[in-house]
Amino acid sequence: MIDVNDAGLAKRAELVIPGGTYGHMDVRSFSSTLPQYMASGEGCRITDVDGNTYLDFMCGWGPVVLGHRNRVVQRAVADQLALGDCLNGGSSVMVELAELLVDTVAHADWAMLAKNGTDATTACVTIARAATGRRKVLIANGAYHGAVPWCTPVAAGVVPEDRAYLDYFEYNALASVRAAAERAGDDLAAIIVCPFRHDVHRDQELADPVFAQGLRELCDRTGAVLILDDVRCGFRLDLAGSWEPLGVRPDLSAWSKAIANGYALAAITGTDALRSAAESIYTTGSFWFSAVSMAAAMATIRELRDTDALSRMRDCGQRLRDGLAAQARSHGLDVVQSGPVQMPLLRFAGDDDFELTRRWCDEAGARGVYLHPYHNWFLSSAHTAADIDEALDRIDGAFAAVARR
Amino acid sequence: MIDVNDAGLAKRAELVIPGGTYGHMDVRSFSSTLPQYMASGEGCRITDVDGNTYLDFMCGWGPVVLGHRNRVVQRAVADQLALGDCLNGGSSVMVELAELLVDTVAHADWAMLAKNGTDATTACVTIARAATGRRKVLIANGAYHGAVPWCTPVAAGVVPEDRAYLDYFEYNALASVRAAAERAGDDLAAIIVCPFRHDVHRDQELADPVFAQGLRELCDRTGAVLILDDVRCGFRLDLAGSWEPLGVRPDLSAWSKAIANGYALAAITGTDALRSAAESIYTTGSFWFSAVSMAAAMATIRELRDTDALSRMRDCGQRLRDGLAAQARSHGLDVVQSGPVQMPLLRFAGDDDFELTRRWCDEAGARGVYLHPYHNWFLSSAHTAADIDEALDRIDGAFAAVARR
Repeated sequence: MIDVNDAGLAKRAELVIPGGTYGHMDVRSFSSTLPQYMASGEGCRITDVDGNTYLDFMCGWGPVVLGHRNRVVQRAVADQLALGDCLNGGSSVMVELAELLVDTVAHADWAMLAKNGTDATTACVTIARAATGRRKVLIANGAYHGAVPWCTPVAAGVVPEDRAYLDYFEYNALASVRAAAERAGDDLAAIIVCPFRHDVHRDQELADPVFAQGLRELCDRTGAVLILDDVRCGFRLDLAGSWEPLGVRPDLSAWSKAIANGYALAAITGTDALRSAAESIYTTGSFWFSAVSMAAAMATIRELRDTDALSRMRDCGQRLRDGLAAQARSHGLDVVQSGPVQMPLLRFAGDDDFELTRRWCDEAGARGVYLHPYHNWFLSSAHTAADIDEALDRIDGAFAAVARR
Repeated sequence: MIDVNDAGLAKRAELVIPGGTYGHMDVRSFSSTLPQYMASGEGCRITDVDGNTYLDFMCGWGPVVLGHRNRVVQRAVADQLALGDCLNGGSSVMVELAELLVDTVAHADWAMLAKNGTDATTACVTIARAATGRRKVLIANGAYHGAVPWCTPVAAGVVPEDRAYLDYFEYNALASVRAAAERAGDDLAAIIVCPFRHDVHRDQELADPVFAQGLRELCDRTGAVLILDDVRCGFRLDLAGSWEPLGVRPDLSAWSKAIANGYALAAITGTDALRSAAESIYTTGSFWFSAVSMAAAMATIRELRDTDALSRMRDCGQRLRDGLAAQARSHGLDVVQSGPVQMPLLRFAGDDDFELTRRWCDEAGARGVYLHPYHNWFLSSAHTAADIDEALDRIDGAFAAVARR
């Protein structure tokens, strides 16, 4: 069994980092036993600062879509590092990447590049307001679109005016969107929505195609901008855009996470109708033109496009889901699995406070499998059937420990 | 003379990037002849995609404080890349960097890490509001604090509510700050200010120590938070903080740009009094815990601390300033130089629309020296006296060309 003491780092961190750490990677918010500080990663495995290795099902919370230190991406990074990174302007790779995004993403006529998912969602809202001259933006209750005052899930330091023109609807409930659009009237600038409902603390919920198509029709009818927040799902489910299988193309999309296999990059893609609005806003950052993360994105997207990475990820996700279902049954435990198999989640039925699920994740962690009790997990293309089987072998002990209680 | 055609990239970019490019690195906004796309950098020189090399006085617009591809930083980056970057939590280097910042920055009891300068300034304002339970934030007219709706200099897509509780004062005019504080009354949360006035389109203006001390006293008296936006100046003027020579310590500081010699990183530092407020807000990003840029920051700050990099940069900045002054005199041209010598700026006297200064910068660019007509330049520690002399030799031709008109 794995023993975690964070090599004394957590104690040192408490002195010099507020709360010891912060944000989504604050382990205390979801586990009492997983490590806070990590030493290294290779493929689908990560090693903590105490030397314990885990089969990784969080993948850096999404970015690592080809596995840690993927060789193709590392080579592209090394090649670009040999030239330069932060210069006085973009490099040729900036243009090449924008071309690749336009070729790859179905709705995209252009692309802009940034650093955080929040940069991209914020720019999408700003472009939509600039394009329409309207103010109201509709958001699904409970959806996560970033961590600055207009969208952060915690109200500390936020003033009501930060959200002055936001109104809310229920995911997959078209009538509630229509009602919100009605309230917005001719001030409706945009609807921002995630490809599926991946809010924390609840079962994941795939988008009803009728819901997605209804949003598209509503936006077409009202002249509002449909923004797909593909930050979490993008480049893992469908390279052309996560709603492409549903036949729905947004006007703007926000991307980040998996776009460059872990290197800091975000993107906004949009249609020609929004090009001049995108030109009219002013958004930028000190490192938004840096070449290395763009070279990593080129390598990542090409690898996802030119290999069977996505289908292998789906197959391994299905193998994990089937295996977990069989194990739960064999232990007489009732579980609910949800979300796409590449971004899975499991909780125990009736475990409304996630207490049992949290204990199960801790037991899995102690056996070398890194899971999360109430935030979707992530597969990478570095996971093989053998890795899934090894993970299931270890997880079986976690089910047994929970069943014993 | 240098011939720039951007290797056809600018034409391709127009198709797939709104406006061909965007943000502060959009060359069209300040030059008709400098290249938009760069191929590589080494030390104090950059090479564009057509193969022209320039003595670089923008340094990636600030980040490159030790020179492009500094060997010590590149080694630290390579070592960390061999371990991993974006893992499920911070790495030991996150704690070490927070410790180094607390040791280095005079006012700092803690540090948080982010990606953009705007992330840091936004978090500072949010922390100040969380700490005080107040709303009003005072900002100097014309100051740049980032590029999201609450602070971006362009109004497109911005709604008035984004700036609901901002009020404005004149830099270096204590009476105007006191009047704004009076207007805010007991709702004054914070004053955010840059270490010197480095607004575009005007002469740079050093902070009057009486002004800086007056802000400190005003904040002490009213319980407001003094935020120093050290994003542009930080780690180039004084490692302990850019107002340390003035004897003024802020409550919060925002850092980015030079912190990691070009790698994407930002930081917030604060005092113990604001630790729990910093803990209470929720701000994060997909790449905020990534180790490589933190390893780069460790190497950068140590190199700045343990070598004579800062004093060499100052000496070279002085050599450049003196040389430019002498050249202008010899050509019978009247110039105004302003700002710290490490972040210099030159314009021609009476050139209110910057037309002459822009032409001079274009002439310098055509002779292989990369300058800016109305945004401060940046020195790096990779600039030597010989590089300055070579730059001056080339710039002399630019003065001559301007004098001929």
